[in-house]
Amino acid sequence: MSILVVGSVALDSVKTPFGRRDNILGGSATFFSIAASFFTKVNIVATVGEDFPKKNVELFKKRGIGLEGLAVSKGKTFHWKGFYDYDLNTAHTIATHLNVFRDFDPKVPADLRDSKYVFLANIDPDLQRSVLGQMRGPRLVALDSMNYWISNKERSLRRILDRIDIFLLNDAEARQLSGESNLIRAAQAILRFGPKAVIIKRGEYGVLYFSKGSHFVAPAYLLESIYDPTGAGDAFAGGLMGYLSRSRKADDSAIRKGIIYGSILASFTVEDFSVNRLLSISMKDIRGRYERFRKITRF
Amino acid sequence: MSILVVGSVALDSVKTPFGRRDNILGGSATFFSIAASFFTKVNIVATVGEDFPKKNVELFKKRGIGLEGLAVSKGKTFHWKGFYDYDLNTAHTIATHLNVFRDFDPKVPADLRDSKYVFLANIDPDLQRSVLGQMRGPRLVALDSMNYWISNKERSLRRILDRIDIFLLNDAEARQLSGESNLIRAAQAILRFGPKAVIIKRGEYGVLYFSKGSHFVAPAYLLESIYDPTGAGDAFAGGLMGYLSRSRKADDSAIRKGIIYGSILASFTVEDFSVNRLLSISMKDIRGRYERFRKITRF
Repeated sequence: MSILVVGSVALDSVKTPFGRRDNILGGSATFFSIAASFFTKVNIVATVGEDFPKKNVELFKKRGIGLEGLAVSKGKTFHWKGFYDYDLNTAHTIATHLNVFRDFDPKVPADLRDSKYVFLANIDPDLQRSVLGQMRGPRLVALDSMNYWISNKERSLRRILDRIDIFLLNDAEARQLSGESNLIRAAQAILRFGPKAVIIKRGEYGVLYFSKGSHFVAPAYLLESIYDPTGAGDAFAGGLMGYLSRSRKADDSAIRKGIIYGSILASFTVEDFSVNRLLSISMKDIRGRYERFRKITRF
Repeated sequence: MSILVVGSVALDSVKTPFGRRDNILGGSATFFSIAASFFTKVNIVATVGEDFPKKNVELFKKRGIGLEGLAVSKGKTFHWKGFYDYDLNTAHTIATHLNVFRDFDPKVPADLRDSKYVFLANIDPDLQRSVLGQMRGPRLVALDSMNYWISNKERSLRRILDRIDIFLLNDAEARQLSGESNLIRAAQAILRFGPKAVIIKRGEYGVLYFSKGSHFVAPAYLLESIYDPTGAGDAFAGGLMGYLSRSRKADDSAIRKGIIYGSILASFTVEDFSVNRLLSISMKDIRGRYERFRKITRF
């Protein structure tokens, strides 16, 4: 079954201890959709400016990603400029130029409103709610957010949480939103806000999954070389949602497997800048890493 | 099969965000032996001062821990004073009074020199080598160390590593000793120093295990309340070695299970000050947490 994702398609300028790249393809919807495209058809709802390179449009098309909902607006594409020090867990923002993203008012094309799997990537929670309002009976909705929206639009965010199946956030955000420093308590508090499940992302330390009846802990896939952590969280969501959509399941066992696939897509993502590494792998590589994941965690 | 441990038996004064305790039972050999005593007979080689409370001696005896190698020396018992902030991963030392430990020259009682399982807890690597020299054909030797010895006695430490089966150290120490910031590369470099296997402890993020042919990643057992992290690493080693000694195995599969038992003993340890929590649990509690560990990591 196909997935609808609403989020950003951006051009990034990134510096890490291993190099520097300017105006490379980025954005939450980008990383999500390319990761998920290994499993299923994905349709993007986003906006770019007139400067958005044609080669990037072609790249999406080659992956079979639907661009019917990608509006080309007057102005420049959303641009993020940032860097990472040796602590690759922390992104430092130099500049965020919203550009055409400032007036982003997501419209879901009529024929995509029946999409059963929906990912609301990290954007203004009011826009996430607007998208959700346009959908007709989605089967599974996942949502990502960030510290900025928790600080500035907590009410809006809280308002939609009871319509969310899987709420993804990182450990700092979970602590901020819940007011609890312990992550078990933080997750329990967030579950009381309404989502059916919470996934807490801990970067190189893996993820924690909590639902009312289940709890799952997954380490991250250990890597020898990390070049650029940008997009890891969205690629994780892409792998997770891609697997769930392809398997047409959303039960506890499927979510656990999906979390492993998500971790694997994230692990490939950080091995190069932008989506370069994702473009060089096949489903066979993903399956290989999945089997290795089993081996290194079995006891 | 019984285990011989050489290390410290101490009195600690500890402050954490959750309370403060003075002159409580501590030391690497203490945490190790009490954790391992759930599985097998343990004999301690250590030294205490004349001030060492009788009730602590009784406590070891009650657990069946052999004290033949515990020398009572003229002077005061080793005393560590420290505190933890909310970041419970980092111990801050206020004072280390070595006292009788300054002249510690470990002598393994004649009838214990045949012990097949040996744990060299974190002490001067020259003393670790002396103990190893007194043993007759141990089957499995594990060693713990710390940043202080890496900084000040790296040659001595390096000299014994090729006689070690399992080398335990934390992530910062692994980076320091290897000069590699990436933990896979750090472990590979350390394996080249000679130990058959390396276990890198990452506190609340679990452990990584590396040998020439195998690699295992275990998350830590997640807890709602952590009162005092002191001793977690030694209790981990105690659970690991206790399980290996009891099962009389040392193959890859046994080490993986032992790592889980170690993680569980560590998880109980940090739920109260000193060894208090360990004294309140039974093998049934340990098995219960082992089963839960399986459930929360299965996919």
